[in-house]
Amino acid sequence: MQLAILLFDRFTTLDAVGPYEVLSRLPGAETVFVAEQAGPVTNDVGSLSVVATRSLDQVPSPDLVLVPGGPGQAELMSDGPVHEWLRAADRTSTWTTSVCTGSLILAAAGLLTGRRATTHWLAVDQLPTLGAVIADQRVVIDGKYVTAAGVSAGIDMALTLAGRIAGDELAQLLQLGIEYDPEPPYRAGGPKTAPPALVEAMRGNIGAVMSGRA
Amino acid sequence: MQLAILLFDRFTTLDAVGPYEVLSRLPGAETVFVAEQAGPVTNDVGSLSVVATRSLDQVPSPDLVLVPGGPGQAELMSDGPVHEWLRAADRTSTWTTSVCTGSLILAAAGLLTGRRATTHWLAVDQLPTLGAVIADQRVVIDGKYVTAAGVSAGIDMALTLAGRIAGDELAQLLQLGIEYDPEPPYRAGGPKTAPPALVEAMRGNIGAVMSGRA
Repeated sequence: MQLAILLFDRFTTLDAVGPYEVLSRLPGAETVFVAEQAGPVTNDVGSLSVVATRSLDQVPSPDLVLVPGGPGQAELMSDGPVHEWLRAADRTSTWTTSVCTGSLILAAAGLLTGRRATTHWLAVDQLPTLGAVIADQRVVIDGKYVTAAGVSAGIDMALTLAGRIAGDELAQLLQLGIEYDPEPPYRAGGPKTAPPALVEAMRGNIGAVMSGRA
Repeated sequence: MQLAILLFDRFTTLDAVGPYEVLSRLPGAETVFVAEQAGPVTNDVGSLSVVATRSLDQVPSPDLVLVPGGPGQAELMSDGPVHEWLRAADRTSTWTTSVCTGSLILAAAGLLTGRRATTHWLAVDQLPTLGAVIADQRVVIDGKYVTAAGVSAGIDMALTLAGRIAGDELAQLLQLGIEYDPEPPYRAGGPKTAPPALVEAMRGNIGAVMSGRA
């Protein structure tokens, strides 16, 4: 089973690495990092580069496609090589997936039309304008299309997918392997749980600037 | 504030990237990935490389040191350039931290003697043989030494640290930014919560092999 994780300038690292840490350990998995050009791709913060081992044309028919999000998503909303690759890969994929604003790229490429999907909570209103239907869940499965909410939700998505692909027992072993028994020190992980003033600060961009996300 | 994240062959990616995703966004943070030699460093699965932007001698006095774990930890248990760098960096660091079996490296370098610490649940018995005291918590703070349990625990550690460094409000904004409102699909994240048969399979190495961790 070939897993292709798309990289692009200013991707958010955890969007890609969270699911990678789970899915790359599935029995028989071959994981490739793919970008328009092979070589190091720099993330949104600017201090981390992951090496893309393949260019798009070298990965014509992966079994699973994963599109991370990040500020660089905004540069990938019009037709071009990435959309062409996504549409071609989607024709034969078993699973087409995204984390965070990666779903906006999938939707812009025409792959989520009429599908239930999610994205980062700050971007969720963009989904309907791209033809998708907002589903208010952390992990959304609509046929072979699986989308996760913001950044860290990719870990929950990957464990869910691992269960579908390889069974509950293996998925649980993977969870035990990464000791995923979360204990966030605050109750601030989403717009419904975080202090309302912080949610508003984030929506108003002040919080986004303060937390290095804008 | 300079954050130095150590890379080494066969590190576990999420150990490094989980905390990175939080700490690199702290106001004024400069994050560097450091290794014995600058350049791409390949992880434990073998399919992902992160670029080390600096060699050890280029980062003499970081404010925060973070040591990830992974199978490559076993090669870093005797004296050598990494231990020398860790001891030197620790002399002036504000925080010396680890995720997963990274704490075994810190302990082997002599930095956790008599200190309360944790590591991946499968490796916890090794801590006392290296002079540290086992603390059965997901994130352990003993003075400036902060250690996290396995892999995904680094995210909880980083949010805890962010609160200490920049205050609760900013830490909560960072949590909201990564939408860290976890919903694991199984209750299998630790030896106390996972089905006992799976914990035993993991301890007996069968489970570790099945889940790509051995």
